[in-house]
This record gives sequence, C-alpha cells and structure tokens, in this order.
Amino acid sequence: MSLLVVGSVAFDALETPYGKVERTLGGAATYFAIAASFFTRVHLVGVVGDDFSEEDAAIFRGRRVDLAGLERAKGRTFFWAGRYTADMNDRVTLATELNVFATFNPKLPAAYRDSAYIFLANIDPVLQLRVLQQTRRRPKLVALDTMNYWIERTPAELRETLKHTQVLMINDAETRQLAIEHNLLRAAAHIRRMGPRTLVIKRGEHGAMMVHNGSVFAVPAFPLEEVRDPTGAGDSFAGGFMGYLASSGRTDAANLRRAMVYGSVLGSFAVERFGLDRLRTLKRAEIQARARHFWQLTRFRL
Amino acid sequence: MSLLVVGSVAFDALETPYGKVERTLGGAATYFAIAASFFTRVHLVGVVGDDFSEEDAAIFRGRRVDLAGLERAKGRTFFWAGRYTADMNDRVTLATELNVFATFNPKLPAAYRDSAYIFLANIDPVLQLRVLQQTRRRPKLVALDTMNYWIERTPAELRETLKHTQVLMINDAETRQLAIEHNLLRAAAHIRRMGPRTLVIKRGEHGAMMVHNGSVFAVPAFPLEEVRDPTGAGDSFAGGFMGYLASSGRTDAANLRRAMVYGSVLGSFAVERFGLDRLRTLKRAEIQARARHFWQLTRFRL
Repeated sequence: MSLLVVGSVAFDALETPYGKVERTLGGAATYFAIAASFFTRVHLVGVVGDDFSEEDAAIFRGRRVDLAGLERAKGRTFFWAGRYTADMNDRVTLATELNVFATFNPKLPAAYRDSAYIFLANIDPVLQLRVLQQTRRRPKLVALDTMNYWIERTPAELRETLKHTQVLMINDAETRQLAIEHNLLRAAAHIRRMGPRTLVIKRGEHGAMMVHNGSVFAVPAFPLEEVRDPTGAGDSFAGGFMGYLASSGRTDAANLRRAMVYGSVLGSFAVERFGLDRLRTLKRAEIQARARHFWQLTRFRL
Repeated sequence: MSLLVVGSVAFDALETPYGKVERTLGGAATYFAIAASFFTRVHLVGVVGDDFSEEDAAIFRGRRVDLAGLERAKGRTFFWAGRYTADMNDRVTLATELNVFATFNPKLPAAYRDSAYIFLANIDPVLQLRVLQQTRRRPKLVALDTMNYWIERTPAELRETLKHTQVLMINDAETRQLAIEHNLLRAAAHIRRMGPRTLVIKRGEHGAMMVHNGSVFAVPAFPLEEVRDPTGAGDSFAGGFMGYLASSGRTDAANLRRAMVYGSVLGSFAVERFGLDRLRTLKRAEIQARARHFWQLTRFRL
C-alpha cells in the first residue's frame, strides 16, 4: 500500500572517530525513503535548494522512491554539521542552517493524498498536522517522530497533532520528557491517552521497545563490531518499520512486531558506514538474512 | 547438582525515592542464595559478626540454603549504606564498613569441596582463587563477578583467577574497562582469551547480553511500573542463572539461554520492593509465570 514520508532532505557534514565527510546527502526523509524503498514504493515530500544537483538525486534512481513531491526552492538546501564522541552516545551539533527548510510548507501532490501509510518525520508539529489535513481519506496508519525542541516549544501544537497519530516513534529521553514520567511503562500509558495507540521507543545501542495496546515488545540492538556513524539510524529504523507495514498492508500486533525487527535491521545497517553508504549497496537478501539473525539473537525455549 | 556461593553477607542501609531502611539483611551471597534456592540447594560460604542474630538468619529457614560455611567471627558484620538517584541509574555509596569481612578468608567445609557449580561473588580475586584451590575435583562450571575496584587495583590477580573461570558476569562499564575496548563484541573476544568462554553482561534497565562461544543472546529487562530498590538485582540475577543451571545439570548453549531468562526473572522480582522483601514472599509459580512473560515480551515470527 502507498507510503508517504514528509521531512527533511539535507546535506550533512559528519565527524566520528572513524572519519569525517564535508558534505553528504542526508536528512530524515532521505534515510527513511531509501530504507523503506526496499519494501514498497515511497512518496517523498520535502524541499531542496538550487544547490541540489542531478548527481545528488542519483541515489534515488532505480529505487522505488517517487520525487514528485520534492520541491525545488531558491536558496540553499538544509545543512547540518555534527560530531560524535568516542563512544558514539553523544552528538554535538556544530551547525544547523535551515536555508530553504525555514519556509518549508509541505504540499501533497494530488496522487499522494490517498496515502494509506504516512510517516511524519521530525519537523514542526504544525506542518505535520497540515500534511494530514491535505489527505483525502483517513490514512490507515500515521506515524510521527518529534524531538525535545518541539516538546518544549510547541507543546499544544504537538498535542493536537498527536491526536491524529497512531504510532509515536521517539527515543527514551523524549518519551520521559513528553509524558513527564521517568518510568517508561507509565509514560507509555500517558502517551496512549494523547492519541497514539502504539509507542515505539528507540534506544540506540540498547535496541527498541514497543508498547502496543498495553503489551510490550522488546528487540535488542544488533551487535556490531564497528559502528562508524550513527547518523540516520532512527530514520532508517522508521523506514524499515513503515516500509514493512505498508508492504504487508496489515497493522495487527504480530505484524507490528515484525516491523520492529525490520526497523532494527535497517537501523543496524545504516550505522555500519558513513551517511547513506551502507544503505546504498544494501541488498534485499541481506535484510532477510539479518532479520533471521535477529531471531537467533533473541530466541529461547522454556 | 551442588551449588556453592562465596561472597558477602551484610547489613545494608538503603535510600531510594520510594523510601529508606536503616538496617536490612543484604550482601551478594545472601541475594544469590535466596534466588538460587528456588531452583536447587545452595551452600553458602561467608562471614558474619556477633551482631548477626538468629532472627537475621530466619530468612534462610525453610529454604534450601546450607549455612555450614557461614563463619561467625568476633566483631561487626559488613555494613553498606547507599542512596539511589531519582532515575535509579546512579548510586552513591554513603558508607562501607568491612568489619569482619576485612579479614575474611573463605574456608570450604569438607562437604562443599565437590561442588559442581560455583559462584564467586564480587570479592578480592585472591580469595576467589583460594576458594577454587580448596575444591577436590574440577568444578563443572565456575562463574565470577568482579568490579572496577579489582580491575584497577589487582589486575594480575584477577587475570590469574579468570583463567579458572568459565562464566564472567559483569556490567557493561566493567566489560569495557577490563577489555580496554568500548565495543562490547570486541571486548567479549578479548575476555574470551583471558579464560571465560561465556560472558554475561548485566545492563540494568537495558537487560542482559550473553556472548557464548562467539554467539550473542540478548534478553531485555522486564518492564516494571515501579522499581523501588535496585540493590541486589545483579546478585539475584546470578542466583537465578546459576540456580537454574545447577538444577538442570547442563551447560549447553540452549540451557545457558534459559539460565539468562531465569536470571532476568529473579533480578526483576528483586527490584520490586526494598532489600529482600520481594524474594522473601516469591513463589516458584510466579517465577515460571514471569519466565513465560519474558517469552511473550521477545517473541516474533518472520
């Protein structure tokens, strides 16, 4: 079924203990779309500046990513520069230049307005709501990412958008901040009352946890010998999660669990190399093999 | 099969956001023995002072804990006072009074010298080795806990003791410190070369991970609405783990995975109330029910 993502397309400058790149394609919608396109066709809504070349768009070619909703605006593309500490657990933002993203006002092409599955990447909740208002029929599933900035600055707007959201995908610190509750189970119950019946908590090297209708599912992070660049891990997770759901067309509990595994698989591949380098060469068969590896990693019999 | 634990029996003063106790029975060997006794008979070797009364020993009564190796010395019992921060992730030691524990020299009663399963709780590695030297035949499985203090102060002695250890059970910070390697997979490979073929990494609210012969198994922490007191969680985990192994008499990979689950079950119960209060009232059927709950928590089908 049709999958729509709305979010940033950006250029990133990245620095980790494993190296440095000055300018590489990034942004939440980019990671999401590439990851999800292994499972289904993705409609991408975002904005780039006139520095975004045909060469930059090459990564989408030959993939099931539809760029009809990628607006070209006058000015420069969103730019983000960040550095990771030695243990990869902290990241320092060195620069955020919104550029054309500052006046981004997402417009859904007519063909996107019937999207059954929608992922609202981390942007202003007012814009996220505006996306939903442009749909022609009620989507089957809306998933949303957000961050401390919006939780602090636009709490009312975020609350309004959450009312129309079925899946909230955030990290544990954001969960605690949004619910004003340290315990994640109780936080999940608070968030359930805000709208989303499903909460997906991304915990980086500690894996991910889902609370769906009060039932908890936990999946560990894939043990990797090298994590070279954590950028885009969460958006790749979201892409694997939503891509799998949209391709299967079902949102029952068992399928949501499988989606958690495929999300974890895509997130684990994303961090193996810099930027989009690993997703660029990834094969469907590798995804399936790693999903089976996740099963090995967690299975036991009583 | 026979299970032996050597470690501290102590009085604890505890303070968490949920309350405060001035003096309650604690110590690694105590938590371990109570937890393991749900599965098998436990021989306890430790030392207490003359302030340790019959009333204090009452918790062991009616359980499969043999106290023939619990030495009574002149002086006061080991005392520890600690306070946990609001999020339970940090603990501040307010007092450590070794008392009779300062001159502890573990002596195995004759009946304990054939123990097949041995848990060396966190004490001086020189004493841990001395325990093993008193055994009459090669134990089937020796598991060891240690901490940053011994890793820093007595690295050579710890290395020597590790040569005779099959399972090392420590937390992730200790793993990284011992191996001088941040990545847990690579750290596990280093530690494998020191002796233990199995590494169990305890990660608190993030669960536990086992690397056994290069194969990884991960189990999440049990999601609890209230964690009232984390004291003894790791030793209760070790008790569940070793108690299950000793009761089954097998140390193959599948059984080690089940032991990880039973360890997690006992650890999760321990933190529900203060000190030993929850283990005190725990029933075998509750353990089995929670083990099944762990299965529910992690299962998925591809």
